[in-house]
Amino acid sequence: MKRLLLIGVGAGDPEQLTIQAVKALNRADVFFLLDKGSSKTKLLDLRREICERYVENRDFRVVEAELPERERGVADYAGSVVDLNAAKQALFEQLIDEHVAEGECGAFLVWGDPALYDSSIRILDAILASGRLSFDYEVIPGITSVQALAARHRIALNHIGGAVQITTGRRLAREGMPAGVQDVVVMLDAQDSYTGLRGQDLEIFWGAYVGTPDELLIAGRLDEVAERIRETRLAAREANGWIMDTYLLRKAED
Amino acid sequence: MKRLLLIGVGAGDPEQLTIQAVKALNRADVFFLLDKGSSKTKLLDLRREICERYVENRDFRVVEAELPERERGVADYAGSVVDLNAAKQALFEQLIDEHVAEGECGAFLVWGDPALYDSSIRILDAILASGRLSFDYEVIPGITSVQALAARHRIALNHIGGAVQITTGRRLAREGMPAGVQDVVVMLDAQDSYTGLRGQDLEIFWGAYVGTPDELLIAGRLDEVAERIRETRLAAREANGWIMDTYLLRKAED
Repeated sequence: MKRLLLIGVGAGDPEQLTIQAVKALNRADVFFLLDKGSSKTKLLDLRREICERYVENRDFRVVEAELPERERGVADYAGSVVDLNAAKQALFEQLIDEHVAEGECGAFLVWGDPALYDSSIRILDAILASGRLSFDYEVIPGITSVQALAARHRIALNHIGGAVQITTGRRLAREGMPAGVQDVVVMLDAQDSYTGLRGQDLEIFWGAYVGTPDELLIAGRLDEVAERIRETRLAAREANGWIMDTYLLRKAED
Repeated sequence: MKRLLLIGVGAGDPEQLTIQAVKALNRADVFFLLDKGSSKTKLLDLRREICERYVENRDFRVVEAELPERERGVADYAGSVVDLNAAKQALFEQLIDEHVAEGECGAFLVWGDPALYDSSIRILDAILASGRLSFDYEVIPGITSVQALAARHRIALNHIGGAVQITTGRRLAREGMPAGVQDVVVMLDAQDSYTGLRGQDLEIFWGAYVGTPDELLIAGRLDEVAERIRETRLAAREANGWIMDTYLLRKAED
C-alpha cells in the first residue's frame, strides 16, 4: 500500500510546525513541493528549508512541480475552481503514480492547515473515488495564517460568547459584512475588499507574511488605516512579487 | 520587567505542540496550571506531562490554581462571563504578582489556541489597562480542537470559495443554522444543541477528546447519527467526569 501525508506546515514561520508534523516529515520517502507562478521561488525555498531543517538521518527525494493556476476573470468562480481542481487532480495522480512506490510514503506540504481553503483533501478523495489509484492517507493539522495573525496582534478572534465567520475577499466584496457576527476573518482577498467597507465603524487587524522576516502588521479603525494597508500591500506585492495576507474585521461594540 | 507567555498547547495530543511552543516552554521560570472542577485532574496531568516532556535541562516551578467557574443557569450569559472574567482577572493578577519575579518569565498553558474562546488575552490586557501590574506578554498559537477534528475526519472545513462560521452551542440552540454559510463549527456545546436541528438535511462530523487515547469520532447524516452522538457523549461524560468535544455541521449541496 502507498501511504500519503498531507502535512500542514504553518503560515511561514518554520517554528510553527508541530512535533506531529516533524515526525510526519521523518516518515516520508518523497516530498512533493508544488507552487505556482510568481510566489514559486520563495515558497519553494521555505519548504525546502523545512525539509532540510527537520528531517534527520534519512534520505529523501524531492519532486517539484508547477501547480495549474485558476483561469482569471471568468464569471463562474466556483466553476473555474472545479476546472482547476480537475487539473490539480490529474497532476496529483501522476505524481503519486510515478514517484511513490508500493510501501513508500509520500508527503504534500500544505501552507496553513489542510482543512482551510486548501484543495488537497478533496483531490485525494476524488482520486480514491475514481478507483484509478489505491493509497491510504493521513492529515496533519497546521497553524493557519489566521492564528499567526491573531497571535501577533494579541487579539481573540471572537467576542465573549460570539461567533466568528471565516470568509473570502470575493464573498466580502459581494455580500458585505455578514449578518449576525461581530468578527469576520477574511482570507484570499486579492482585491482589497476591505476598502469597500469604510464608514461602517469597523476595526481591522491586518497582516502579511506573518511569522516571516518580511512580516507586516497594521491595526486600527478601518476608516483611518484602509488606505495605508492598501498602499503597504501594493508596495509589498511589487517588491516581493507575491503576497500572502489575511485580516480580521471587527464591528465596534454596541 | 516581568515577561508572560500565553502558550497554545493544542487540543490534547502533546505532539500537537509547535516547535515555537516547545521553545517558549523552555523560556519559562514558572508554569501556571489552571483548571476547574471535574476536568481538573486529567487536564492537569496532561499539562504536567507537556512540561515534563518538553522542558530540557532547566529548573521550573509549577503553580496550580483552581479557576473560578461561571454561575450556571443565569439569564444574562454575557454578564455571567464578565463576572467570571473579573474573578479570573483577580486570580491572574495575584499569581503574576506573587510568583513571577522581575526579570522572570511566567507561562500560562492554554488548550487549543489563545485566540479562540479563551479569555487569557482579554484578562492580561485588562490587568495592564488597570495599571496595577506591569509586564510584557507574547501569544504562541496552538492547534485548536476544530483543526484536530477536521484532520481526523479528513475533511475541509469550507466548501470551495465558501464561508465557515465558528459558533457556540448556546448560539446554535437560540438561532439555528446561521444564514449564508454551508459549514458551521460548533464549540462549547454542553446542551446537545445539534439534536434540535434534525430534519434539515445536515451532515455532522463530531469528535470528543480528539487526539488523545480516549478519542471518539462519529460522522454521518445528522438525522441518522444524532441520537448515537447524544448517547456516546453522555456515556463518555459519565465515565470520564468531563467532556471536551466539538463538531462541524454541513448543509447538503444544493
